[in-house]
Amino acid sequence: MNSTNIKEITDVKKLSGNVTAPLGFLAAGEHIGVKRKRRDLALIKCEVPATAAGVFTQNRVKAAPVLWNHKKVLGKINGLVVNSGNANACTGEEGARNVERMAETYAECLGVDKDSILVASTGVIGVQLPMETITVGIKNTFALLGKGEPASTNAAEGIMTTDKFPKEIAIETEIGGEPVRIGGIAKGSGMIHPNMATMLAFITTDANIDRELLQKALKESVADSYNMISVDGDTSTNDSVIVLASGLAKNRAIKIQDMDYEKFKSALHYVNLNLAKQIVLDGEGAEKFLEVTVNEAKTKQDARLIAKAIIGSNLVKTAMFGADANWGRVLCAAGYSGAEFDPTKASIEFSSNAGSIITYLYGEPVVIDEEKAKKVLKEKEIKVLVSLKDGKETATAWGCDLSYEYVRINGEYRT
Amino acid sequence: MNSTNIKEITDVKKLSGNVTAPLGFLAAGEHIGVKRKRRDLALIKCEVPATAAGVFTQNRVKAAPVLWNHKKVLGKINGLVVNSGNANACTGEEGARNVERMAETYAECLGVDKDSILVASTGVIGVQLPMETITVGIKNTFALLGKGEPASTNAAEGIMTTDKFPKEIAIETEIGGEPVRIGGIAKGSGMIHPNMATMLAFITTDANIDRELLQKALKESVADSYNMISVDGDTSTNDSVIVLASGLAKNRAIKIQDMDYEKFKSALHYVNLNLAKQIVLDGEGAEKFLEVTVNEAKTKQDARLIAKAIIGSNLVKTAMFGADANWGRVLCAAGYSGAEFDPTKASIEFSSNAGSIITYLYGEPVVIDEEKAKKVLKEKEIKVLVSLKDGKETATAWGCDLSYEYVRINGEYRT
Repeated sequence: MNSTNIKEITDVKKLSGNVTAPLGFLAAGEHIGVKRKRRDLALIKCEVPATAAGVFTQNRVKAAPVLWNHKKVLGKINGLVVNSGNANACTGEEGARNVERMAETYAECLGVDKDSILVASTGVIGVQLPMETITVGIKNTFALLGKGEPASTNAAEGIMTTDKFPKEIAIETEIGGEPVRIGGIAKGSGMIHPNMATMLAFITTDANIDRELLQKALKESVADSYNMISVDGDTSTNDSVIVLASGLAKNRAIKIQDMDYEKFKSALHYVNLNLAKQIVLDGEGAEKFLEVTVNEAKTKQDARLIAKAIIGSNLVKTAMFGADANWGRVLCAAGYSGAEFDPTKASIEFSSNAGSIITYLYGEPVVIDEEKAKKVLKEKEIKVLVSLKDGKETATAWGCDLSYEYVRINGEYRT
Repeated sequence: MNSTNIKEITDVKKLSGNVTAPLGFLAAGEHIGVKRKRRDLALIKCEVPATAAGVFTQNRVKAAPVLWNHKKVLGKINGLVVNSGNANACTGEEGARNVERMAETYAECLGVDKDSILVASTGVIGVQLPMETITVGIKNTFALLGKGEPASTNAAEGIMTTDKFPKEIAIETEIGGEPVRIGGIAKGSGMIHPNMATMLAFITTDANIDRELLQKALKESVADSYNMISVDGDTSTNDSVIVLASGLAKNRAIKIQDMDYEKFKSALHYVNLNLAKQIVLDGEGAEKFLEVTVNEAKTKQDARLIAKAIIGSNLVKTAMFGADANWGRVLCAAGYSGAEFDPTKASIEFSSNAGSIITYLYGEPVVIDEEKAKKVLKEKEIKVLVSLKDGKETATAWGCDLSYEYVRINGEYRT
């Protein structure tokens, strides 16, 4: 993993219409019957063949549509079809054939080649897709393609599983003096054990950019956004982040790593970070939003490892649910993260809107005011700061607490 | 990690008196006031200086007593003092001084050198030990040292934290025709996220064996017992397994890796595996006992990684709690374990006293009888078998389900 330090963007205008805000994209979302009631299909149509980039699950078990997209993303893309309710994962050869049929069906609607269609699925693992429902559903939903509301939010809803709300954003910024737009939708919850959350994000942009640089910008952004809520390599069978670029904005084509490229990357990262945080906020059964920052680390990688181990610890999560300033569990998680640091130099602070409290200072426990600690931790948004006094690198991870509700949702998900 | 294949022992006689069953050991346990009500101190006395071996936490943050034992275990040992209720972890320099004072206090009682005393603590992290209570408590408990019941079970109780029952065992077997005894006590729960369970096990034996071989046998046994309920390197600040050998049995001294050594190792492993399973059975808030076996793996290490990833998955655990045959989560956990295998050759089977059900066969999902699956998974003991068709290595891991009760216990532990 590289030590990416993506600059923050300052000139951002929020737009409506999520993936349809950039020039060149339409969207639709509908209930077609894979799930009982909620919307379960989303389509994106590219009005001109789009440049595409993708980052996919590192799980050795890859869902059938992930294997399809891996190859197709290298060519020009005319559309994306996504169903929810069924992940088409661990479905063997029939699953692979069904991906192709989904692509074919949508390609026929659009009058394009099936190889220019990307496919994604999320939901239950190990059950074959109901292909009759899917093919009829694609054709019906195709008729609903449109720009702006309600088509765009319908699309955001179409990719949801246990999500409580649709995750969407669109922004406009300037690259080389020209307005450029980026929009996105995402789904993901099950965030209590982030390494198992199926996470999908689909980004569109009208930026004019080469494929290699689009892929590079996406990869770097993902490392500090979605990957900081989801442990590297511990991803689900379907995790995917895909970006489609129409090139219809008037910016001079981005062909080298110049200032325009850096600006685009910052804008893309703004969108990704926003969607990643929306996913955390929707964590299954979560009652609190946690932000863990590790600073003064020797390397960026050490900072990331520690932040992710803490945000991923069940014991830290349950302590936060119980508003218990159990900093020992925080230090313990740092200790097994695999990162290098000296616990006798470390400090730990909890903070929220109700104040802050240092519990461990340069390797020694601090006698704390338990009442104040309770007050700080009873808030909905909790920040945990771990300072290592070991260097100058920093990393932040986002997560949520572990509640009774999580157990309920995940004990009943499939049946 | 080596590919150890420890032979099963067949001639085992169960004894009472846990750590006091082998010749040369006394024990005591008492409530001294670190905790509100339950016993919170345990002592073991060696009647002759004992040979010692230890395996300690790989967490970068090591509790003060762990740092002490690391060195002392190399010399002859006269006694072990353990408190529960306070882990003396993350307690800085004062914590280190307190370990020494605990050793000193007990050493004075025994009339021996403080360097021949091992010390262990378990409980809350980051709070200084109440040393007045501890020192008075050690002296009072010293007067209670004895052999057999009730002293031995009192000791097993003295090391408990959230444990629901004391974990103890003692056996007799023969080495080179001579009877040899091994006894042990252990504590550990919080097993839902096994990588955070503080696990302590103290084993005594009257076997006559060299220190290096005692250490080697312990290390190999731990890899296939405690480590298969607790992820390598992801251990708590206090995890320790210590074995003390008095040498008072009449077996010819074990000085090389001969048949006597192999027999001793098998007997030691019998004790460790039994204690490890008792720890799992006591898993915080657990309602089901899970056994995951991976076979036909290319390497032992691959088999272990996969078994541990599955047993450690929150989503698998909640599925088992909900009696849901969600084999997709099993395969997904295998996929992110880091092990090498081909998912298109894998098979998955769930079984229990109520029967067995294959859900995935050679890479293809099997349409299952949901009613039968529910019946199989409603049992208290569930076995998950993953066959890889990739080789001939096998590994087994043990764990439990994830219930509402776990969240309750861990949300309220410290306060």
